[in-house]
Amino acid sequence: MKNAYEQLTEHYKKVGDLRHVYMITAWDEAAMMPVGGGEARGEALASLDVVIHEMVVNSQVGDWIDTCSNLDLDDWQQANLREIKREYDEMTCLPSEFVRSQSVASSKAEQAWRFHRGENDWHTFLPLLEEVVKHAREEAEIRAERTGLGRYDALLETFEPGMRSAVLDELFARLKSTLPDMVTAALAQQAKQPLLPLGDHFDIDRQRDLGLRVMDLLGFDFEHGRLDVSHHPFCGGVKEDVRITTRYTTDNFVESLMAVVHETGHAMYEQGRPKGLSGQPVTNARSAGVHESQSLMMEMQIGRSRQFLGFIAPIIRDVFSVSDSEPAWSDQNLHRLYTHVDRSLIRVDADELTYPLHVILRYEIEQALIEGAIEARDIPALWDEKMMTYLQRDTRGDYKDGCMQDVHWSASLFGYFPTYTLGAMMAAQQFAAMQRALPDVLAEIGGGDLTSAVSWLRENIHNQGSLLKTDELMTRATGETLNADYFLAHLQRRYVDDA
Amino acid sequence: MKNAYEQLTEHYKKVGDLRHVYMITAWDEAAMMPVGGGEARGEALASLDVVIHEMVVNSQVGDWIDTCSNLDLDDWQQANLREIKREYDEMTCLPSEFVRSQSVASSKAEQAWRFHRGENDWHTFLPLLEEVVKHAREEAEIRAERTGLGRYDALLETFEPGMRSAVLDELFARLKSTLPDMVTAALAQQAKQPLLPLGDHFDIDRQRDLGLRVMDLLGFDFEHGRLDVSHHPFCGGVKEDVRITTRYTTDNFVESLMAVVHETGHAMYEQGRPKGLSGQPVTNARSAGVHESQSLMMEMQIGRSRQFLGFIAPIIRDVFSVSDSEPAWSDQNLHRLYTHVDRSLIRVDADELTYPLHVILRYEIEQALIEGAIEARDIPALWDEKMMTYLQRDTRGDYKDGCMQDVHWSASLFGYFPTYTLGAMMAAQQFAAMQRALPDVLAEIGGGDLTSAVSWLRENIHNQGSLLKTDELMTRATGETLNADYFLAHLQRRYVDDA
Repeated sequence: MKNAYEQLTEHYKKVGDLRHVYMITAWDEAAMMPVGGGEARGEALASLDVVIHEMVVNSQVGDWIDTCSNLDLDDWQQANLREIKREYDEMTCLPSEFVRSQSVASSKAEQAWRFHRGENDWHTFLPLLEEVVKHAREEAEIRAERTGLGRYDALLETFEPGMRSAVLDELFARLKSTLPDMVTAALAQQAKQPLLPLGDHFDIDRQRDLGLRVMDLLGFDFEHGRLDVSHHPFCGGVKEDVRITTRYTTDNFVESLMAVVHETGHAMYEQGRPKGLSGQPVTNARSAGVHESQSLMMEMQIGRSRQFLGFIAPIIRDVFSVSDSEPAWSDQNLHRLYTHVDRSLIRVDADELTYPLHVILRYEIEQALIEGAIEARDIPALWDEKMMTYLQRDTRGDYKDGCMQDVHWSASLFGYFPTYTLGAMMAAQQFAAMQRALPDVLAEIGGGDLTSAVSWLRENIHNQGSLLKTDELMTRATGETLNADYFLAHLQRRYVDDA
Repeated sequence: MKNAYEQLTEHYKKVGDLRHVYMITAWDEAAMMPVGGGEARGEALASLDVVIHEMVVNSQVGDWIDTCSNLDLDDWQQANLREIKREYDEMTCLPSEFVRSQSVASSKAEQAWRFHRGENDWHTFLPLLEEVVKHAREEAEIRAERTGLGRYDALLETFEPGMRSAVLDELFARLKSTLPDMVTAALAQQAKQPLLPLGDHFDIDRQRDLGLRVMDLLGFDFEHGRLDVSHHPFCGGVKEDVRITTRYTTDNFVESLMAVVHETGHAMYEQGRPKGLSGQPVTNARSAGVHESQSLMMEMQIGRSRQFLGFIAPIIRDVFSVSDSEPAWSDQNLHRLYTHVDRSLIRVDADELTYPLHVILRYEIEQALIEGAIEARDIPALWDEKMMTYLQRDTRGDYKDGCMQDVHWSASLFGYFPTYTLGAMMAAQQFAAMQRALPDVLAEIGGGDLTSAVSWLRENIHNQGSLLKTDELMTRATGETLNADYFLAHLQRRYVDDA
């Protein structure tokens, strides 16, 4: 006779199996599917989603969870039970009628957004967004009641368990008070050394080859993953078989390559999580922020370091058959390209230094929206004001490149934006801890050897899965809870002092 | 309130959606998956398979089927109900304990076969095969009792509904009495005109390009399908998104190209079946034989015709940058290559003329095995004897290239082999009917225009799905039930009279 925990994990093994199939098929949709397959695929994935959802919210699961509290479980089992319970509570607390209505509202807004954004048409889009906001507030209300959290925090909890807006406010206050001046200083530094252009024709097969070589260098396991192409780069698949994508244009390889590095960071986190507990939530990524910390570890801490760029510069020149005496292709100019700062209007094009300001602007607006301090119609004026304050850019009348640029709010992803900058701060704090533990690590990276860096990440972050709560994970890995010091010090060093 | 038929089709829509996801993920396993993903993938697909199986054998389905008999249904609905009932009966009649035990026996034999075949080790493999045969006989017994058919027929029915061994015996008797002499005559013809070799280095990108051009010519819809690479060529995916594969070697393009043509035939049958009845069994392929008839229509009737080869010969020369004055690359020599006859030991390498003899040999052995007339240990001696009679080849002691060459029996696919040759006969009979209806069709094919040929197939075969039983499908399309005349006449013409 199996006990409740064994029954629960057996059930979750099946859930994990179906999620495996879902993830591979969803990757296929983005990376492989011919356009005519879209309608049938959408329906097929929706049906599978219903099956998975029904398995997760099955009342039997609730009974097993309750019975488990009487069992003697080890640390991993307890953590697994905690994560199962979290998912169960999260997925059962919304009435199914509400979920359906919310999904319709989001899906309408998302489709309208694709069109109206192109037309710069905020006013036609607004009522659809208002409908999404209405639902998001109701969701926040229900979740707040169930969890005892504040309304915005109750949404944040679904992406970043344990994080609270009171903590975020403090962390972001440090960034807000420091970054605008730091950007000005960085731009002044940058102006002293103008960028040399690299040319504008780069064979796509060679770009792909370069990406594969760099993935290999970073430690990507090609026995458990692939690199392909999709419209937007992403990391999909399952941890036993991670599918990352990039996109190529012939006139620029710089962004495509760094997208590969970024997604490889996500992929390494997938490939490094605990094996042998198939489908169990304790093997899931700890949070959206921790996932992002691993992509930004590879992209920002390692990938754009002078050491790493110095090592791959000869590889880049070799792949594109360029002489190392070409000034535009010098280590120095390539480093400048990869650390170029710009007050962009667009978040996804923003550099490491200005990116947090884009995030904070969105965080402040969405928090006020969910708490009811503002209405959707107030967004453009607030956006304009904050863009001027944080980035000195005028967005008045430019909805397309202003408050309509992201899909997140249409898709009802309120509470997601902060995780990008949480990830950036975590990565800086982790990398500082790694350097204390491994004083030679940057020099090793400069020699193309990431072995000890990756081992540190495996042991301190990846192998932990969701065993610990995020605070505890950071404390054990870095000796302190998350703070903004390391991120700010890193930015000051890279963009001002050592630029 | 929905009636039983509506509830049934709604249920089958969900089954179809899950099967869609299954098929895409299974294709991914063969065409995309890195090797390290295999174990998790196997478990994931097995779990999904259980979910689908439970949905199909749900007792609610049986109730709906019963209630439907009181409803007023149109022809398509009646056919759909008939197919649902057939699947329901087929999948519910075996006790689940038996299915599990059979699946273990097959899976053990299949794994052992991969190893022992390489070692030419029949004696170690035999007990595992005996276990599979024991289960297959039990399955045949249960199915025979349920259906009232003979034991072998009850297995045949699962691949080729409506076909009976009494009919097969007659059809195959015609082939058996004719083909051995025809092979001798063909070889004599062939000896008069020796084959010129084409060389041995063919760039794989060019081979792929050639395959895509030929697929396009045959009418493959690239908005609803793709061409990729796998270890064995196959046609997978779903009808809205058909995934065909081939494999390339640099030293030969001839087989790879014809594999593309063959799989394109399968794919056209998929792409041409009825739209808008999503997931309903009436839209399924009529049978394994009918599916094979569509691949062989493209490969054998059309693809290896002088007309079609004459049209693609300049394309082939162009792709490989060969002058049309090269004798080895003449239309004539390319035609000889594509209609070369050889008494091969290996079924999958066999040409169109000798292939049926390989099939008949297996049919006779598996029929005797299932009916209990022989035991598994008798297979090698029978194999040796029949190979000598039908193909004048000595296989004594050569199990690897003899009775151990196919995976089918290890995988418990008893009743499948005949469908290959049923498909060949159907294709010849269909093509003859098409030529009567469209007297210019061969000339059009010779001009690279397959429009009317494909329209005929769409209307007479593809669009019919599983509306009709196979006999009726053939009668409506060709004016008579399946017989061996057209196939034999076609072979006589191609390999003897016009060779």
